[in-house]
Amino acid sequence: MIGEGIDGLLGLTCSLFLTPSSGVVTTDGAYPTFDFHVLAHGGKVHAVPMRAFREDVPRLLEAAKATGAPLIYVSNPNSPMGTWWSASEIEEFVAALPSETLLILDEAYCDTAPAGTRPPVDVSNPQVVRYRTFSKAYGLAGARIGYAIGERSTIEAFDKVRNHYGINRVGQVGAREALLDQEYLKNAVARIAASRTRIAAIAKANGLSPLPSAASFVAVDCGGDGAFAARVLQGLLDRDVFVRKPSAKGLDHFIRISCGRDEDLDVLAEALVDVLARVHA
Amino acid sequence: MIGEGIDGLLGLTCSLFLTPSSGVVTTDGAYPTFDFHVLAHGGKVHAVPMRAFREDVPRLLEAAKATGAPLIYVSNPNSPMGTWWSASEIEEFVAALPSETLLILDEAYCDTAPAGTRPPVDVSNPQVVRYRTFSKAYGLAGARIGYAIGERSTIEAFDKVRNHYGINRVGQVGAREALLDQEYLKNAVARIAASRTRIAAIAKANGLSPLPSAASFVAVDCGGDGAFAARVLQGLLDRDVFVRKPSAKGLDHFIRISCGRDEDLDVLAEALVDVLARVHA
Repeated sequence: MIGEGIDGLLGLTCSLFLTPSSGVVTTDGAYPTFDFHVLAHGGKVHAVPMRAFREDVPRLLEAAKATGAPLIYVSNPNSPMGTWWSASEIEEFVAALPSETLLILDEAYCDTAPAGTRPPVDVSNPQVVRYRTFSKAYGLAGARIGYAIGERSTIEAFDKVRNHYGINRVGQVGAREALLDQEYLKNAVARIAASRTRIAAIAKANGLSPLPSAASFVAVDCGGDGAFAARVLQGLLDRDVFVRKPSAKGLDHFIRISCGRDEDLDVLAEALVDVLARVHA
Repeated sequence: MIGEGIDGLLGLTCSLFLTPSSGVVTTDGAYPTFDFHVLAHGGKVHAVPMRAFREDVPRLLEAAKATGAPLIYVSNPNSPMGTWWSASEIEEFVAALPSETLLILDEAYCDTAPAGTRPPVDVSNPQVVRYRTFSKAYGLAGARIGYAIGERSTIEAFDKVRNHYGINRVGQVGAREALLDQEYLKNAVARIAASRTRIAAIAKANGLSPLPSAASFVAVDCGGDGAFAARVLQGLLDRDVFVRKPSAKGLDHFIRISCGRDEDLDVLAEALVDVLARVHA
């Protein structure tokens, strides 16, 4: 099923599976737009904290069992931390799902993850829907094309609630051509990996601690508290370097730096030295 | 508020204003996608028949009063018949709305209507939301850009339920440029008007009865019953002439022929003679 980005598909998933007051299990600090859709559909968000900056898969499972949640949301790799689980860990998780629970497996960042992160596609299991997008590694965020992969009857159910005329034509053509040009994707993924390495090096050179990342960004521990990270973020924004940060407790001392071209990272490197000098002053 | 076509905005309107079992008033044979959205939101459709091939504004008003409907749907000009009400008639209708009812005024086809069809824009009235699109006279259906005009707090409410990343970038740029090029629109509208005139002439030359139309199509009475019109439609489809027809009772003896280029209408003219000869044989 294609949709107006993964966001559109997440909203439709809530339309299909939530009734008012349904509990939904997710991670504190995970994709906020998912929570927004749950709340807009009258659902209740049960958020489990991360553990070692990863989504805490065993605890998500416990929470789903305890609440009888119709939906669990897991992103692999994760945003905003860039951490990930291996394909086999995800498969064990799927095997342990309560029978009444559907796993929303958000794989927006899967194209930039190491080999062995994505489980093989298996559309025999009606309890898993996987969400992918052309907005990240494919570089087509403006096209608004995401897609969901799942068992036939689950996927067909989207037809009951979707806007049948929601997907623009230029985006469709672009997405198809992008799929056909896997050489371009391979090259883009290699450049993203190189950019991650350089962001980590820039962070370390400034005394900050980058997390290993499988996504198209790097989460960087600023070494202080949330307020300190917010000052670093603001300093970068003031220098027209657009960086984001998580706001969830336990994650808020990080900033999240997107991959970019060499010339962009030159600007980052220069700005970061300057910002840290001022923030420490 | 912009949306993924009027369709997207109609769905959001249902999210905002319907609760399960809300009654909604519309016209039998009017835009079916609106009914689809109402049903998907658990609402109940109360459909009033057309009168003289126009939406029956007095009866719609009565039905809204009788059912306490939170929403009435009116299209002006109307699809599939191409008929319309004058601006002053619409203004009288608005003035008579029950206080608990919001008017969905679908103006998808307003750009091709005669002067005096569109009431002046008045965003002081929270009971009216007007829906427009770049998919008809502007010729940008593939862009999926519609918009809603209304009182500020009503329009702001869409932000609570919409996909905030739903509108593609190429479409946005195209729609803005199209708005800036009113000369192009004027020319397109003139060509549509000429095409309507020629479709009507082709219909009459074949002994069929075209309705006057303010839209970018002409509804043509095939002179028989619904089954006869369906045979005419199928004959045209078999000759690769894509024409549609209403299926509602009282309208089903019409076919709806879209405006086209001169060379398209040459094909129509030739195919129609041939189809009618066979259908009558």
